[in-house]
Amino acid sequence: MSTYHPLSEAEAIEIARTLEGVFAPDAKLVSREIGDGNLNLVFHISDPATGRSIIMKQALPYAKVVGESWPLTLDRARIESEALMLEGKLAPGLVPTVYLYDKELALTVMEDLSDHVIMRQGLMNGGRYPQFAEHISTFLAQTLFFTSDLGHNQQEKKLRSAGFINPELCKITEDLIFDHPFTDADTNNFEPAIRDEAEALWNDGALHLEVALLREKFLTHSQALLHGDLHTGSIFITPESTKVIDPEFAYFGPMGFDIGAVIANLLLNFAAREGWDKTAADRDAYRAYLLKTVRDVWTKFEAKFIALWNEHGVDRLAAAAPGYKENYMRRLLQDTVGFAGCKMVRRIVGLAHVADIDKIQDAAVRERAQRLALEIGKTLIKTNRSAFSINQLIDAVETAAAKAAVQA
Amino acid sequence: MSTYHPLSEAEAIEIARTLEGVFAPDAKLVSREIGDGNLNLVFHISDPATGRSIIMKQALPYAKVVGESWPLTLDRARIESEALMLEGKLAPGLVPTVYLYDKELALTVMEDLSDHVIMRQGLMNGGRYPQFAEHISTFLAQTLFFTSDLGHNQQEKKLRSAGFINPELCKITEDLIFDHPFTDADTNNFEPAIRDEAEALWNDGALHLEVALLREKFLTHSQALLHGDLHTGSIFITPESTKVIDPEFAYFGPMGFDIGAVIANLLLNFAAREGWDKTAADRDAYRAYLLKTVRDVWTKFEAKFIALWNEHGVDRLAAAAPGYKENYMRRLLQDTVGFAGCKMVRRIVGLAHVADIDKIQDAAVRERAQRLALEIGKTLIKTNRSAFSINQLIDAVETAAAKAAVQA
Repeated sequence: MSTYHPLSEAEAIEIARTLEGVFAPDAKLVSREIGDGNLNLVFHISDPATGRSIIMKQALPYAKVVGESWPLTLDRARIESEALMLEGKLAPGLVPTVYLYDKELALTVMEDLSDHVIMRQGLMNGGRYPQFAEHISTFLAQTLFFTSDLGHNQQEKKLRSAGFINPELCKITEDLIFDHPFTDADTNNFEPAIRDEAEALWNDGALHLEVALLREKFLTHSQALLHGDLHTGSIFITPESTKVIDPEFAYFGPMGFDIGAVIANLLLNFAAREGWDKTAADRDAYRAYLLKTVRDVWTKFEAKFIALWNEHGVDRLAAAAPGYKENYMRRLLQDTVGFAGCKMVRRIVGLAHVADIDKIQDAAVRERAQRLALEIGKTLIKTNRSAFSINQLIDAVETAAAKAAVQA
Repeated sequence: MSTYHPLSEAEAIEIARTLEGVFAPDAKLVSREIGDGNLNLVFHISDPATGRSIIMKQALPYAKVVGESWPLTLDRARIESEALMLEGKLAPGLVPTVYLYDKELALTVMEDLSDHVIMRQGLMNGGRYPQFAEHISTFLAQTLFFTSDLGHNQQEKKLRSAGFINPELCKITEDLIFDHPFTDADTNNFEPAIRDEAEALWNDGALHLEVALLREKFLTHSQALLHGDLHTGSIFITPESTKVIDPEFAYFGPMGFDIGAVIANLLLNFAAREGWDKTAADRDAYRAYLLKTVRDVWTKFEAKFIALWNEHGVDRLAAAAPGYKENYMRRLLQDTVGFAGCKMVRRIVGLAHVADIDKIQDAAVRERAQRLALEIGKTLIKTNRSAFSINQLIDAVETAAAKAAVQA
């Protein structure tokens, strides 16, 4: 079984049975393949007698997106499992436990989180997650600080980075986030109703300068080990629990890319609210909840990151130089704002969209949501280098929403 | 012979004999060990009958500096030989030709450059090198552009960077350039006469902020494959030829670090001139030559780098975004200015000095040179983020020299 091949459900059960201390030797195991088949096989293996269950995720040697298929390295399974295990050590309880990684089969066996929902779906359903900002800010502060030159031995960080060179998955981000939406690329995917918006993106030189600077950071700024794809579809959640999954895009890059991804996806849901709430009052209340969450994610992250720095900093000069921490945190906020903007824009005109907006049934409402998301995204990109407070970002979002409401 | 051990001269000759097409089979070869024994054995192998000769450089598994000895990876020989071969491909004629690299023996066999002099010694002797700025700017533009995300396939660049992770030698730079000179560290090495200057460095918060920002760039900005130690002791020269040697510190870092190293070492010689020139007129003329060289190094580099970008750029957005090139080149100049400053300061108060200044016999003159070098270095560090033209740097150097002349 050790040569790579896509597993059958029977084979998956056979492997599950060999795991120590998980299932009884004579358990009657049941398997369900629950992946979408685009990138991975995902088996849900359970013992109905005890209710115990696990997830087995096997990478497929190709990616399928909108009918296209291209080869994709199986090494991403190694990167994902190693990132999960490291994140689990740095942020205990905030990622699924990994039971086994099999290199040959590109297979990761991990904790079943079926009692959680995917956060994107949870938000679409109007769910509120009072612990989310607390949890995700801990995840971000712990994983980013302790893999950076501020919190980790700087020679070991260099050696570790060699294990997370991730050219193929970085390429997807470089193309789909930091290039294609800003030119008339074949991969772009937008509704005819907003063609004017797409063309405006392609012809906005001031925007291109900012995106080029952010792209350069993504390409060259080896700041910390990122999750690399931290949208609300990569988060399992309940009101009490948050679990970050799917770090196959992990690599050493700019911290703001992860923080910005979380904020961008909260704001995409913000833009989509008119499609989900029954009344204007519901919508306003939910939007206020989302903006409070955005603010809390940043302020809690900032406080925790600085606390870690004060207690566990390994860089003498970074700790001693007056004003350096403030300078560092401000640049981190600026990166966060800029990357959040890029992540919003690509979800409207680029290849991969978000269900928050795509699933809005009413075309006119959907179009309003798309235009609002683009307006917020462009504003964040254009103002990223002058950002100095999370309140600025909140104000910009509220201003864009008010403008959209007047136009509606 | 293939297990690692320091070679004897007889063994070196035996290996030289096996090289294809270099020496006649029956040649009577002569070996001379010409290394300083601190880091490497260096054998000069020649055939007196034909005048043909080669250099064999073998890494030793330790470093000796001012009596201390610490273990140092033999892998640096691989990094050095791979960097030399890549530089030779990108900048033909500007590095020695590599004939052989033997991994087990940590041995690199290369072109003999005995007809050249080490540039530091050449400058101390008042030599002028009219081709130097042309050559080194080509070396810098070609090696930096074509190993960056601007000029090299961005996925291959990531893979290549894994081969140049160089923790041990980077650590030397991180400590000796970007930390120790700015605190009362044991490794510091300065004359009692300038203790006031050293203490001022330790207590200058504004300076520490700038150094911390430059240190961060050295740690995280994976911009291009650097030489990593490009001072005038790493350059063999004649009036017609320039050969860059010893890239064992090579790693992917900020381009300005290499350009700044060249400029810093020209300016260290500038500061040292009062110890080398017979008359004030000689001194002024030589200083004018050095400053012209500094200006030419930058302006020629800038022109060549932009020309390569225009012709061979691989990044669509970096080429298309209005103002991005200007923004990029300005940041590159700023980095160059800041790193040049750091490199000057460490050569006066840090562990490793330069002969240009240390060999000045007259203690008062030597002290003047040291104070001038520190004045220039600190000015460059403090003004790096506002630099917008190489003329600013030249002006700052001339102002510092004029001030020093008045005080003398």
